Amino acid sequence: MSVDPRESHNPPASQGSRLDPYVDAYAARAQGMVASEVRALFAVASRPEVVSLAGGMPNVSALPLNELSELVSGVVSEQGATALQYGSAQGDPVLREQICDVMGLEGIDAVPDDLIVTVGSQQALDLITRVFVDPGDVVLCEAPTYVTAINTFAAFQSHIEHVAMDDDGVVPEELERRVTELRAQGRTIKFFYTVPNFHNPAGVTLSAERRARVLEICRRFNLLVLEDNPYGLLRYEGEQLRALRADSPDNVIYLGSFSKILSPGFRIGYALAPPAVRAKLVLAAESAMLSHSNFTQLAVGRYLANQPWREQIKDFNEMYRERRDAMLSALDALMPPGVTWTRPQGGFFVWVTLPEGLDSKAMLPRAVQERVAFVPGTGFYAGDDGHRHMRLSFCYPTPEQIREGVRRLVSVIESEIAVRDTFGNASARPSDGGDAPGPDLP
Amino acid sequence: MSVDPRESHNPPASQGSRLDPYVDAYAARAQGMVASEVRALFAVASRPEVVSLAGGMPNVSALPLNELSELVSGVVSEQGATALQYGSAQGDPVLREQICDVMGLEGIDAVPDDLIVTVGSQQALDLITRVFVDPGDVVLCEAPTYVTAINTFAAFQSHIEHVAMDDDGVVPEELERRVTELRAQGRTIKFFYTVPNFHNPAGVTLSAERRARVLEICRRFNLLVLEDNPYGLLRYEGEQLRALRADSPDNVIYLGSFSKILSPGFRIGYALAPPAVRAKLVLAAESAMLSHSNFTQLAVGRYLANQPWREQIKDFNEMYRERRDAMLSALDALMPPGVTWTRPQGGFFVWVTLPEGLDSKAMLPRAVQERVAFVPGTGFYAGDDGHRHMRLSFCYPTPEQIREGVRRLVSVIESEIAVRDTFGNASARPSDGGDAPGPDLP
Repeated sequence: MSVDPRESHNPPASQGSRLDPYVDAYAARAQGMVASEVRALFAVASRPEVVSLAGGMPNVSALPLNELSELVSGVVSEQGATALQYGSAQGDPVLREQICDVMGLEGIDAVPDDLIVTVGSQQALDLITRVFVDPGDVVLCEAPTYVTAINTFAAFQSHIEHVAMDDDGVVPEELERRVTELRAQGRTIKFFYTVPNFHNPAGVTLSAERRARVLEICRRFNLLVLEDNPYGLLRYEGEQLRALRADSPDNVIYLGSFSKILSPGFRIGYALAPPAVRAKLVLAAESAMLSHSNFTQLAVGRYLANQPWREQIKDFNEMYRERRDAMLSALDALMPPGVTWTRPQGGFFVWVTLPEGLDSKAMLPRAVQERVAFVPGTGFYAGDDGHRHMRLSFCYPTPEQIREGVRRLVSVIESEIAVRDTFGNASARPSDGGDAPGPDLP
Repeated sequence: MSVDPRESHNPPASQGSRLDPYVDAYAARAQGMVASEVRALFAVASRPEVVSLAGGMPNVSALPLNELSELVSGVVSEQGATALQYGSAQGDPVLREQICDVMGLEGIDAVPDDLIVTVGSQQALDLITRVFVDPGDVVLCEAPTYVTAINTFAAFQSHIEHVAMDDDGVVPEELERRVTELRAQGRTIKFFYTVPNFHNPAGVTLSAERRARVLEICRRFNLLVLEDNPYGLLRYEGEQLRALRADSPDNVIYLGSFSKILSPGFRIGYALAPPAVRAKLVLAAESAMLSHSNFTQLAVGRYLANQPWREQIKDFNEMYRERRDAMLSALDALMPPGVTWTRPQGGFFVWVTLPEGLDSKAMLPRAVQERVAFVPGTGFYAGDDGHRHMRLSFCYPTPEQIREGVRRLVSVIESEIAVRDTFGNASARPSDGGDAPGPDLP
């Protein structure tokens, strides 16, 4: 009896084949849609025996649940007819006024009409990209940069080009050099994407002196700036810096979020943009989702109106400062020579650089076996960089867990160094390319 | 003293000029982002003296606010750690199970893994378009079709081609003819978008007999179907029909929503797709918004678990049936000869056809002066069609308001007919093209 091997190995698509019958039907941009390492790590982070230094989840258990419970109840009982109805694509006007007050803390003087409320600042990234980026356009990003921003820019077929950073944020000379170089090549740069405060993943902050220089360069080169600032108010030491947008309203689009100073569960972010751009963003938002949730917008509005939100931020900052200190002390005390890391003044992240010959991505499965997780550096670059880096988060675990997590991580790194010293390279395995796939977990 | 006219007439962009300094920076797709008539009409609908037969807002005042108020309070007090945290891009797993029960009412047998929860079904439209549509690809739509779907398809630079409908929904022979014709021209059709139940705006329902024929044609031509079903459970007479997806799981993507059977304020819609497509949609959703609101997902989940939601739908249906009856009786009693309209068995909309020589868009300003609003038919076509049509909604106003609104509308139409009979054409004004702009209100 002859068997058609296609039949025996390829069940029809209708029976759940792994073959994708639509593979030829997708848009070209769908090729750029890849799974992020952070997303894949949600599964790891949820195992109770693993200390996760991976995810960037805020510690929402510090919120006053009783007050919030009453507050959302009031949204329905007192504002139900609005809360439960469709809203406008631009967002609730009262909330937009309140957001202007929040932005004022970083020196921004804005009017509600220039704001659009978005589904987290991630949606703002998405809307801006779809309004500006044609396939092949360049988006300038710091090196490293926020992983899901890479995904969004890639999803619209942009070319991501990186600009070097150091402990004071992006290096202005490098920015100028890259813009000059790319323009000389005839390439179209659509904007420069930057996280100036407590960078994700690098943990560094753009100094005040550099802010002026970056803005001067961007104005001189007529370059739009996309300032992404989810962590700006989570500062644990030093002085609050002025937002880039505060000093350059015409060529900066500013993104903010309530995910870190209140809760990511409401999905309330926002973009402040020059009027003509804001108008485009509202049209894009309408086609993307019709309107945001009136319910969660009104909930955040009531929180800002009736709860001591500035004090809540102070409480968050005390809690996160303690966690950051726990991480930095543990790293100082335990890390072997040759490992270096950044010292964030706020935010959620420490960026670690491993000694030559170590590979953070290759190391991850061994780390998870030792019950500690991190995000390998490779996910934060568009190309094949970042193998010697890892992002450690101190936002979610307790100080005690952080110390234990660092202890476990140190033991993994020490054993990798020992392997390297014996065999010359701790990661003698085929290259995995720079496509930022999910971690290859055991 | 000489004055530079550019200075006196064109203030610098930084001072709020109407000139857009970014006009050359936008992506090509941004040209396709235009304001929808429905959105522009929100402003009109909100004037208290106007009877709005325009918007498709559900009557959320019929919801049990006390119960919902308690319910959302419980989401925070009992599930706060989850509700206030980030979620997965695919959506809450418990809610996805519950959605399978809801879809079961229309004959769909599905597993939660094939579902993605979206920001209303509008976001599902957006994600599907971005996953499938390259610039120039064809999307087949009914004629007329849902206005914001047109915007979304256009925002990704698709070419929209229409297929004729009649009182039983899309005409199968026309579908076959259009597919054959377009393929013969070498054009790539990405999917056929259809609203089979209580069509927006046409009010008609695809008959059971035609469902089988449409599915047979789409399977034969290997054509993906996008079944958009926000109104399916709002049936006021006749028997529930099986969803297209129920009989063709491999080539139908099904969209549903809680906006009409519960509330649009939570922004919970969903897409049910073949596994490989679902995986692409989750990646697209992650880059579009990271994750949906856990809070509103858990709120809808608790509603489905603890509230008599089937009875709530029955209550909605009684209320809407009364409003539909009020509209149809008023139209029957008052409309002059030559005006025709559809008779919806459910949903929110009646589609009116005006006599030759009348133009609904040109008529709108006069109607608003008479304190009644509707949506002109032109917004529901990609080309320059629909001038003799208008969409009337009966979902939001009371029966009394509906009767009064129809009375006002009839007087406007009668006076337009009188003008036509005198001058030959009631709309002797320059053509406004087919670009679906907002209404030109006084």
